[in-house]
Amino acid sequence: MTEKKKMIAVIGGRDCDETLYRQAREVGRLIAEGGAMLVCGGRTGIMEAACRGATEAGGTTVGILPGNDINGANEWVTIPIATGIGLARNSIIARTVSAAIAIGGQYGTLSEIAYCFQYGVPVFAIQSWEINGVEHVETAEEAVRLALENG
Amino acid sequence: MTEKKKMIAVIGGRDCDETLYRQAREVGRLIAEGGAMLVCGGRTGIMEAACRGATEAGGTTVGILPGNDINGANEWVTIPIATGIGLARNSIIARTVSAAIAIGGQYGTLSEIAYCFQYGVPVFAIQSWEINGVEHVETAEEAVRLALENG
Amino acid sequence: MTEKKKMIAVIGGRDCDETLYRQAREVGRLIAEGGAMLVCGGRTGIMEAACRGATEAGGTTVGILPGNDINGANEWVTIPIATGIGLARNSIIARTVSAAIAIGGQYGTLSEIAYCFQYGVPVFAIQSWEINGVEHVETAEEAVRLALENG
Amino acid sequence: MTEKKKMIAVIGGRDCDETLYRQAREVGRLIAEGGAMLVCGGRTGIMEAACRGATEAGGTTVGILPGNDINGANEWVTIPIATGIGLARNSIIARTVSAAIAIGGQYGTLSEIAYCFQYGVPVFAIQSWEINGVEHVETAEEAVRLALENG
Repeated sequence: MTEKKKMIAVIGGRDCDETLYRQAREVGRLIAEGGAMLVCGGRTGIMEAACRGATEAGGTTVGILPGNDINGANEWVTIPIATGIGLARNSIIARTVSAAIAIGGQYGTLSEIAYCFQYGVPVFAIQSWEINGVEHVETAEEAVRLALENG
Repeated sequence: MTEKKKMIAVIGGRDCDETLYRQAREVGRLIAEGGAMLVCGGRTGIMEAACRGATEAGGTTVGILPGNDINGANEWVTIPIATGIGLARNSIIARTVSAAIAIGGQYGTLSEIAYCFQYGVPVFAIQSWEINGVEHVETAEEAVRLALENG
Repeated sequence: MTEKKKMIAVIGGRDCDETLYRQAREVGRLIAEGGAMLVCGGRTGIMEAACRGATEAGGTTVGILPGNDINGANEWVTIPIATGIGLARNSIIARTVSAAIAIGGQYGTLSEIAYCFQYGVPVFAIQSWEINGVEHVETAEEAVRLALENG
Repeated sequence: MTEKKKMIAVIGGRDCDETLYRQAREVGRLIAEGGAMLVCGGRTGIMEAACRGATEAGGTTVGILPGNDINGANEWVTIPIATGIGLARNSIIARTVSAAIAIGGQYGTLSEIAYCFQYGVPVFAIQSWEINGVEHVETAEEAVRLALENG
């Protein structure tokens, strides 16, 4: 039987500034160093930064893509999944993980947070939506520690 | 060529109190009287109330169900669609309509509001989530008038 | 409580010749005259022909579209559903109906036939796939009679 | 940038006899030894056998599950994805891979073969559906060799 790794989502916007990009990359690195697998939407911005940090630390990154083509994944995705179901794929990300870290983000991130809470998945956030249930933290370290402990 | 009716979503919780139930029923009635078609998740609570009001006024109600069986629809759904894709169906509701009315609701409603904004669909709300972009109103009349004008 | 109509799928190719187009239109007309609702993929070819026949006879036609926009429906769809989930929507069509009529068709039609049998939905066919379980008939009349009796 | 591995699907029934189980396990082993990643539906029967062979050879196995829970995966899945979209997930498997190997199977396998051809993915088969386009082979070696060459 294969050893199961924890699966942690990083959710956030396709576009982000340098500060959030750096934090997402750090989150990705710490997820990999914590022995967990990173799951995300597989695209640019926060998703790319997190995947980059995780693969630089030798981790595995799963990109649940909205589109039809695995080549739509950012270059640090190791396992691209071409769902072809558009943004309905946000539900799959939330179903698959045991904890999520939200970093920044717009309405796409909001739909993922909402799905997480429907499925009982805790969400830890850095500068993201102020929604009832989200636990806000300051640092990448704190976000990953809480996700690994509660996921 | 068939005449296309406007399609308006009513989104809200599976459970609701009497006051919101009454308002949702009134919203359903006004959508039908306004010549539009009601689209919803097809289940209980706010969805049932809106379908009830619409069919009582002679309207058509589309229920985009999460489950595998059209018999999971409430009794006032005239067109049940058994998506079998679970809550990922929330994306389909938002894609299909030109405006949405949110009434109360929990995280499911939140994911639908988020999808609406991703797809450029305006959301009018009665006692629902305070999310940037949502236009809050007091009455069923105002919600339906705005949805028909902006949808 | 609203009266529930039977829901019958017509499945077939986006492209078709004049003979199959005529038969699909006749199938659509007979479904409407039989008091059932027509469900299809909402696009061109066989789907368009069936919707045309049904709406010309005063029936209701549901188009479960692969794309993001209800304007992608053919002009004889009365209820367009923009799933945005691509060809995964073929599963929704099969889930929603109690019988299906296949007319011609390529691999898309084959996936719909396969889904129908997974969900226990009988399939009657005019010049379509020779798959174990499909009941082949010669005429639109026979296809619709069997679909209404067994659906 | 991460090195992209080829992704090869193994599709087949939830139930299978000993002979097919052995062949699927061999197919899984050869996929892993060929440096490719195995993608499947994540469940029992052929899917389990293929995952088992692949993980025994040190490979990575992706299970695109129909249900809501990653614990529904067989024990040899290393990357479980809980789609929650039921059998509509068959489309995701076909979208994600560059070649597929069908082993035995019923209507679920048929829908996956159909999706593969819609998406231009070649299908090699061992004792599976006789569908136009499927290339039938006798051995696991031949199936995997062709999948790796054409995928």
